[in-house]
Formats: sequence, C-alpha cells, structure tokens
Amino acid sequence: MTPTRPVFYISDGTGITAETIGHSLLTQFGDTRFATDRIPFVDTPDKAREAALRIRAAGEAAGVRPIVINSCVDNELYRLLAESGGLMLDIFAPFIEPLERELGQPRTNRVGQAHGMVDFEAYHRRINAMNYALTHDDGMIMDFDDAEIILVGVSRAGKTPTCVYLALHYGICAANYPLTEEDLEADRLPQKLRGHRHKLFGLTIDPVRLQQIRQERRPNSKYSQMDTCRREVAQAEHIFQNERLTVLSTTHTSIEEISSKVLTTLGIHREMF
Amino acid sequence: MTPTRPVFYISDGTGITAETIGHSLLTQFGDTRFATDRIPFVDTPDKAREAALRIRAAGEAAGVRPIVINSCVDNELYRLLAESGGLMLDIFAPFIEPLERELGQPRTNRVGQAHGMVDFEAYHRRINAMNYALTHDDGMIMDFDDAEIILVGVSRAGKTPTCVYLALHYGICAANYPLTEEDLEADRLPQKLRGHRHKLFGLTIDPVRLQQIRQERRPNSKYSQMDTCRREVAQAEHIFQNERLTVLSTTHTSIEEISSKVLTTLGIHREMF
Repeated sequence: MTPTRPVFYISDGTGITAETIGHSLLTQFGDTRFATDRIPFVDTPDKAREAALRIRAAGEAAGVRPIVINSCVDNELYRLLAESGGLMLDIFAPFIEPLERELGQPRTNRVGQAHGMVDFEAYHRRINAMNYALTHDDGMIMDFDDAEIILVGVSRAGKTPTCVYLALHYGICAANYPLTEEDLEADRLPQKLRGHRHKLFGLTIDPVRLQQIRQERRPNSKYSQMDTCRREVAQAEHIFQNERLTVLSTTHTSIEEISSKVLTTLGIHREMF
Repeated sequence: MTPTRPVFYISDGTGITAETIGHSLLTQFGDTRFATDRIPFVDTPDKAREAALRIRAAGEAAGVRPIVINSCVDNELYRLLAESGGLMLDIFAPFIEPLERELGQPRTNRVGQAHGMVDFEAYHRRINAMNYALTHDDGMIMDFDDAEIILVGVSRAGKTPTCVYLALHYGICAANYPLTEEDLEADRLPQKLRGHRHKLFGLTIDPVRLQQIRQERRPNSKYSQMDTCRREVAQAEHIFQNERLTVLSTTHTSIEEISSKVLTTLGIHREMF
C-alpha cells in the first residue's frame, strides 16, 4: 500500500490561497491518500526554520517526501522552507514573471495581503450583508427592497447556507423566502415577491434527501414525513415552472456551485472576498 | 494614465480556485487597475468558444490585452480559450507534472471537482455546523457541550461572522458568548463557560471602531455611546487578562485571519471546504 503523503500548506498570511489551490490539485490525484496540515503566518526566518523542521519530521515519520504548497513570496523564507527537503510547489512563482512583463511593472513585495483587511468599505459591506442574511433568513423580515437576491424554496432546500455564503464571499444582500403551506396550496408566489421578480431564484431538492434532512431536524413529525416532502417539492416545482423562475436542484450541488450559478443566472458580478 | 486591464477568471467549475489565486496575484500589482469578470462552468467547446469571444471583445474595448486566469484542465478547452488572444495564466499546469512525477501516477482528468459536492458526509457536517452557529449565536442557546470553539467578547466585536465562517469553511461547531453587563461588572467569566476553558478565545476591538459599528445598528442609544464602548472593551480585556484567554483584536483583521488564528491557537486542524 502507498504510504499516506504529508502535505503542508505554508503561507505568510492565512494560507487560504495555498490551501484552496492545493486542495484543487490534490483532488486530481485520487489514488493517493494525503495527510494535510496548515502552517499560516510564516512571516519571519525563525518561523520558516521552525516550519521546515516540522515538515522534515513529518516526512521522516511517514517515510515519504512531503509536499509543500507554498505561498510565501519572500525569497529568504522560501529558501529556508526548501531546506525541509519537501517537494516545493510555489503557487505564485510561475505567474509573477509573465505578469510583470505584461503589466510593465515589478510586483510590490507585500506579505500576506490577500486575505488581510485592506479595504474598510468592502469589509463593511461584507459584514452588513452577513447581518442582512441573518435577519432576513427564513422569512423573518419580509421587506425585500434591499435584497439583491431572493432565494425561494421549501424549508431545508439549502437557502440559508447559500445566502450566508453569498454575503460572506461577495458582500451580497441575499434574502430567502420559504414557501409556506398557504403559498403551496394557492399554487403561486405570494404578493410580496411579485415586485421583485428579477431577484428571484428557485431552489429545489430531491424529496428523499429532503426527508433525511428534515428527519434530523424534527424526527417523526408531519414536517419530516416522506409524503409531506414529496408533495411540497412537487408543489414548489409547479410554482417555479408557472412563474418561469430559474431553478436549481441542491441535492448534488455544493454551496459554492449554487452561489456561482445564482450569480451567473441573475447576471450579478461582484468580486470575491 | 494606464488603461484598466480586463481580467477573466475561467473555470470548468465554479471558478473559485481561479479567482482566489488570481486575486492574490493581482494584489501584488497595486499600480494597475483591473476590471475582473468570472466565467464559470466552461465545460464544453461551445462554451469555451463563447468565452474566448467575450475575452477578445473586452480586450478590444479596453485597448489592452486581457489577462485570463484559467483553471480549465482540459487541453482542448485551453486551446480554444487561448484563441482569445489574452495572456493565459493556467493555474494548475505548472504543478501537475512535478506532482505526477513525485506521486508516480498520472492525474485523473476530472473536470470541475474542487468545489463540487464529492463527500456527502463532509457536506453534512458543514451544514450541521452552520445550523449550530446560527442557533448558538449571541447567547441564544447556552449549552456549550457540543461546541468546539467558543468566541467570547462584547457585542459587535466580530464573533458572529467568525463563527459562521468557521462553520462554512471548516465544518466546525463554533458558539459565541457575548459578555453581558452582569459578567462585565462581576469582572469574570460566567459559570457556564468555566467547564469549557480549552475552547475559549477572546475577541476585542478598538472602542472607536466599535462605536461606529454600534452607532449604525442602534443610533444614539446608550449601547452605542463612546463611553459605553470604552468601558465595555476595557472591562472585557480585563477579564481576558485575568482568565489568561488568548485574545485577538478584530479591528484590522479579516474574518479569514481571525478564523485562521483561532484554529492555530486552539490547535484545531480541519481541512478547508
């Protein structure tokens, strides 16, 4: 059996960029098992030396060469980390030189900037959007004028996590509207959503999956019965179709994918945090 | 004046990996203005051709060559995208060959996997953690047995966004405890936190910044007075010091940095979503 391969995400900042690209790379090597670790805020030679020792020790314990996915931009830190003996994959290096040439300027040597707080206004928007998502969750506040997006669907179809994700990562005020028994019986969207048609996006879900989720929330209730789930999903989908809403099934879709598709569909472009 | 440079994040999946590394790269070129756009789910030759046309048009409109930050792993899609004439920065390419050599296996050609829903159990943990954060926010539920992390601080010090981030990205059940007037006057942590000392992390904030945030939430209230903010922050910091909690100021710290530091301090390792 192949030994489990140690992987280290090293950064002078949070390490989020290194881990994001590293994770994407490793998923392309499905046959190997990886044991990943993160060493953030490596911003001094001492911390780099310490990280290198940890990496070396992990390699010796595993009996196999560690992989180092590194986003430290400083040459000296890089050199110290390389002394770990690990396979160094420097995630920025290959792109710096082509960008410098194309832009006609040298890169500025700023350490750990990507997920630092550089822009107060943007940060503020992000926190406001987050508060918005939390106060406009689950139909708590029914004023949708400030919403940029309104997710519509039956209870537990995936609306809340998506709204929170959109707020945290795009600073977008996303509300969600759970279709009520009354809406489902009336077979149409409620009046209060009608003025906001261009903001609406429907989420649906496989009834079997919905039943599992609801069963965990409220075991053995009418809410979590298979019949209820089937009926509600069918009624909701009928409404979506009649009202010509774009609909996405969340059953096999990650929060990231749902968010990305909602933004693309509604034509909203916002830089990611 | 230098023209604004069009940048496109292209992916066969959500484009999140491309945008994350792209954003990190662009922050290193502070003198150039960029107009960024995202084209996700480019997973067919037709979509790649369409994307290439959009990129080319943006370059012609701007009068400057676009930059294409691409995570499409398929050679044919890459070739079609390259016809846009943009500067192609292929974020995976430089690392695939060294990894293949090191691991002794070819990469599996899976498209758009990184932020897809591959692991039901992990996804479930993530959603549960999210629900946990929302139901254990702001002292709503005071049972901390299932919490892995408890953030402590005065109201509006940054606890909620951090808890939600930890849930969404690490599947961690993080609760938060807002120090009450009673706690602050008693000059110590409440009894119900005492059994959970190893989970505690203190957040503090500059009183001036706190005052601004509170003023927006409840204008001209006692809650948002400068005196109140100063006193509460001083009392909270006194408690943190007495109880020897690790403390971080959120004033100039992003949610990502706070989360990363909390995890490092409490020695929690969890793979990122």
